[in-house]
Amino acid sequence: MTDTHGNPESHSDSMEHEDLYPTRSDAGEIRPFGRYDPVVHARNQWRWDGPLGEEVLSRYERDGFLWFEGFFSRQRIQPFFEILKTMAADQELMASDGVITDPDSGDLRSVFAMHEVSDYFSELTRDPRILGMVRQLLGSDVYIHQSRINDKYGFHGSGFDWHSDFETWHAEDGMPRMRALSASLMLTDNNEFNGPLMLIPGSHHYFIPCGGDTPEGNWKDSLKAQRLGVPAQQWLRKLSTWGGIQAPKGRPGSLLLFECNTLHASNKNMSPWPRSNLFFVYNSVDNPLHDPFCGNSPRPEFLATRGQPGPLAMADDSHKPRASEL
Amino acid sequence: MTDTHGNPESHSDSMEHEDLYPTRSDAGEIRPFGRYDPVVHARNQWRWDGPLGEEVLSRYERDGFLWFEGFFSRQRIQPFFEILKTMAADQELMASDGVITDPDSGDLRSVFAMHEVSDYFSELTRDPRILGMVRQLLGSDVYIHQSRINDKYGFHGSGFDWHSDFETWHAEDGMPRMRALSASLMLTDNNEFNGPLMLIPGSHHYFIPCGGDTPEGNWKDSLKAQRLGVPAQQWLRKLSTWGGIQAPKGRPGSLLLFECNTLHASNKNMSPWPRSNLFFVYNSVDNPLHDPFCGNSPRPEFLATRGQPGPLAMADDSHKPRASEL
Repeated sequence: MTDTHGNPESHSDSMEHEDLYPTRSDAGEIRPFGRYDPVVHARNQWRWDGPLGEEVLSRYERDGFLWFEGFFSRQRIQPFFEILKTMAADQELMASDGVITDPDSGDLRSVFAMHEVSDYFSELTRDPRILGMVRQLLGSDVYIHQSRINDKYGFHGSGFDWHSDFETWHAEDGMPRMRALSASLMLTDNNEFNGPLMLIPGSHHYFIPCGGDTPEGNWKDSLKAQRLGVPAQQWLRKLSTWGGIQAPKGRPGSLLLFECNTLHASNKNMSPWPRSNLFFVYNSVDNPLHDPFCGNSPRPEFLATRGQPGPLAMADDSHKPRASEL
Repeated sequence: MTDTHGNPESHSDSMEHEDLYPTRSDAGEIRPFGRYDPVVHARNQWRWDGPLGEEVLSRYERDGFLWFEGFFSRQRIQPFFEILKTMAADQELMASDGVITDPDSGDLRSVFAMHEVSDYFSELTRDPRILGMVRQLLGSDVYIHQSRINDKYGFHGSGFDWHSDFETWHAEDGMPRMRALSASLMLTDNNEFNGPLMLIPGSHHYFIPCGGDTPEGNWKDSLKAQRLGVPAQQWLRKLSTWGGIQAPKGRPGSLLLFECNTLHASNKNMSPWPRSNLFFVYNSVDNPLHDPFCGNSPRPEFLATRGQPGPLAMADDSHKPRASEL
């Protein structure tokens, strides 16, 4: 039996609950191993149906990310800043758990569950151009596992150490398989000096178990600074020597798609130029969360959508400027 | 009366002891002001005698630094690594005050007074190609105010916040005027990810008084992390918006000359690639140190050469590889 994207359907409960990617506690002693999951999940004919062509799919398989310079127009991005201003003025929202401040400066750092706070953001996550690519890469319908905006103010905004998102989502959210990806949309310029996202191409091919016990409520700390889930330096050294490091840079409206297991990090913003990026994490509807594999209680819903969420539907994409706007 | 480089001789004691550049304590309340000192000190005919031509001198005046990609051959640089290894194995040296470790990792961060520890380094500070440019830029004979090697190990090596070296040397060493510069020689590749030096072009035209009392022995802390002497963000913002930020990058043997008052900083080394740079600070023999303007006792001699040091003499520059080495 295969589903509509050519993937074998598997519903054996025993298989689903097996921990294929052991990490945390003593798992730091386990050597890295190759991933069990494909990188591009749509197979055979389904893979070739597009929207991405084979040359781009192969690059995604090789590197673990794709960069689309100027994917959206500035015009399409501009309204978000107005919405952000409105949100920043909403004291109730700002006091909620989903709003994270910078450990050094106390400034606004992240707002989670953006797609539930704002219709405009929700619509963006369902933009046909993005959703089409995401469905192809994940080989199924998808839902939003997490959404957030990450802000780094000028001369503020500390960095984030190297990590795989999947390692955290597996351990702390119970995401069973590598069948998720992040879409990061640049709201500001990302340049050499304002702490752009750095990635290690090819690192997504390996799972690196990380040591250290996960305290209950670890997310309150981990959203401010990555401490657990940072691979041992010997593996970081090996992978970045093989694959190098890349930091995509470009203007507002640029889009980065990166696989859930691609190692990434960011440095401090040493410039006066703020860096503001939206992140939408898509997960396959065939990869719903189990209980966290680290054994803790699940993280709050604003960090990880639990249950069996319905598939995202495409949004209307008639975002052409009216003649009167020209 | 002018000296051999066309500069007016001034030996009025009262003038020399005047604090032209007030900083620390309440001075943070004083607005930035234009520097009183020229950037290129050799004047008129002396300026035109070379070795640098007018187009390069003008760039140095405008930006406050000059970058020479591949100034020395790899062959010329290679022996330094052997010397460094020998030094690292010297336990007595490693335990001395002039050796500074990283606040985060405990790794070797800086070794000071390199030119006194090693003849090979001493000779390098007197290399005719470097010394010729330095004498022209400072308009006089020069001596070594400070020399050091700065190491950032892979995945270690924290950053340094924005500062002007002159601000520290004036406050804590009693350097009266802006008539010094640093020559930084790259011993490793400096790339986007291993924490290269960043500079704000044009920032050297202004002196930015910084607030905060200077504790006795501040250097023990300040060599690990820049806390005092960091300009207020409003001025950093203005200067970097005007001038932008540049981070010269290149292969081992590349040389950076930067004026003592040019604002610079560096970010963490997030890569596996070590970053190792030599710094030689040259000061004009006509700009000897006074008592520290912050009122503290002078810093140790390995940080700041005191008294009336004699001028550096050119070294023999016959560093051609022998035919047998080809």
